[in-house]
Amino acid sequence: MNQSPPPPLPIAPTAAVLVIGDEILSGKVEEANVAVLARTLRPLGVLLMRVVVVMDDIDTIVREVRDLSKAHDWLFTSGGVGPTHDDVTVEAVSRAFNVRVVSSPPMEAMLRAHYRERCTAGHLRMALVPEGAALEVTAEVAWPTIRFENTWLLPGIPEVFRMKIPVVVARLKQSLGDERGHGFVSHAAYVKMDEGELKPLLDCVVASFPDVAVGSYPKWLDPSYKTKVTFDGRDDARVLSARDAFVASLPAGEPQRVD
Amino acid sequence: MNQSPPPPLPIAPTAAVLVIGDEILSGKVEEANVAVLARTLRPLGVLLMRVVVVMDDIDTIVREVRDLSKAHDWLFTSGGVGPTHDDVTVEAVSRAFNVRVVSSPPMEAMLRAHYRERCTAGHLRMALVPEGAALEVTAEVAWPTIRFENTWLLPGIPEVFRMKIPVVVARLKQSLGDERGHGFVSHAAYVKMDEGELKPLLDCVVASFPDVAVGSYPKWLDPSYKTKVTFDGRDDARVLSARDAFVASLPAGEPQRVD
Repeated sequence: MNQSPPPPLPIAPTAAVLVIGDEILSGKVEEANVAVLARTLRPLGVLLMRVVVVMDDIDTIVREVRDLSKAHDWLFTSGGVGPTHDDVTVEAVSRAFNVRVVSSPPMEAMLRAHYRERCTAGHLRMALVPEGAALEVTAEVAWPTIRFENTWLLPGIPEVFRMKIPVVVARLKQSLGDERGHGFVSHAAYVKMDEGELKPLLDCVVASFPDVAVGSYPKWLDPSYKTKVTFDGRDDARVLSARDAFVASLPAGEPQRVD
Repeated sequence: MNQSPPPPLPIAPTAAVLVIGDEILSGKVEEANVAVLARTLRPLGVLLMRVVVVMDDIDTIVREVRDLSKAHDWLFTSGGVGPTHDDVTVEAVSRAFNVRVVSSPPMEAMLRAHYRERCTAGHLRMALVPEGAALEVTAEVAWPTIRFENTWLLPGIPEVFRMKIPVVVARLKQSLGDERGHGFVSHAAYVKMDEGELKPLLDCVVASFPDVAVGSYPKWLDPSYKTKVTFDGRDDARVLSARDAFVASLPAGEPQRVD
């Protein structure tokens, strides 16, 4: 336990999410996109550091986009990209980066082809993008995903948000290049001891493995265990060593299981 | 539609939530408390304006508690109140308000009575509070809920978080006093038109009812309707008028239903 830890891996690329929507803050709709994105970023080795949820207020969104895009390698917005009055994300991102809102000719053409004689001015609003935005597509997802520099504009509807994930993954893998292969890994031990009893054992493994994040989560109403102890990091061998050192420190009869 | 709107109600008391937890940002656990709190605050007339999710980093939490507690009438933290190394909320809130962390004698006595000879230093950490904190209890919830000035320290475990809600409601009702009776109300219309087609009708009702928040939410894969249009405000009669004006503007065959 006294051996010095290996040199740390390069600091992970970081990310933030800005969730835009009165409907989340009023409790009308349960937020469902952050967890999906978190689980997408983790194995890529991108550290999601911050999530902010704000109302459909353009000045607030402009300020958040500016701050979050500067402070993180990637920013993902969720929501506010439809055609109606409460969809202000494209305008807010444009203002945040000091560019104009323009209609994208290829997106406008796709909308006209899709809606044909039913196509309204409202539908055509879905072709608006910040001037200079990249339109990200893959072979499977033809409708473009809008990215301006490090800021992705993702839709709030969970089914549509999920359709964009392969596009994000493809682009991030490209940009991460050599840093790939350092995705986060996670292991866990499940014990019947409670957190109060575990504290000295946790303090010990935390001190011995500064490069491994140790978390403990009480479980209610589950007869098979009382606390889940998690071990997270970018070096699988170190994470497993931390878990096994913790397991070796437990009294007889523990753990209930590991994974 | 050209009558002027009634004088606006007093601006709602505002609230923010600070969710503390690596486990949410890593996607290991889905956040489940914000929607519960949002639905609790809404009928009380308290406007939830902002949610921030951060890692278990004490400096970050201190900064957020300072900013959010100043900018809103109420702040609710979720998570980080257990006995282990990653539970730093009590210390962070104490630092944010420049007070010491102290052990609460009544909470310590309750812990000793509960754990008896099994009681560890770890268990006793659950009696730590910011010096000067209020310990909120009700007849039904005997274990105190910690509040420091306008900042509530709520637990992250969803089952325990929910147990605290009646305590929050009782205290907020007390403090709101005369402002009660102005809780937010919500009505909706469900239509088969899409957002692009609805845009001019929505713009019209938005312009005519500046005191009613109008939202539109596309529904995927539901044959009974395509868009849910919501009407929210603090004056039930105005909210219903807005919904009915919108419904009257729809073409034949719409809406599919209202609520």
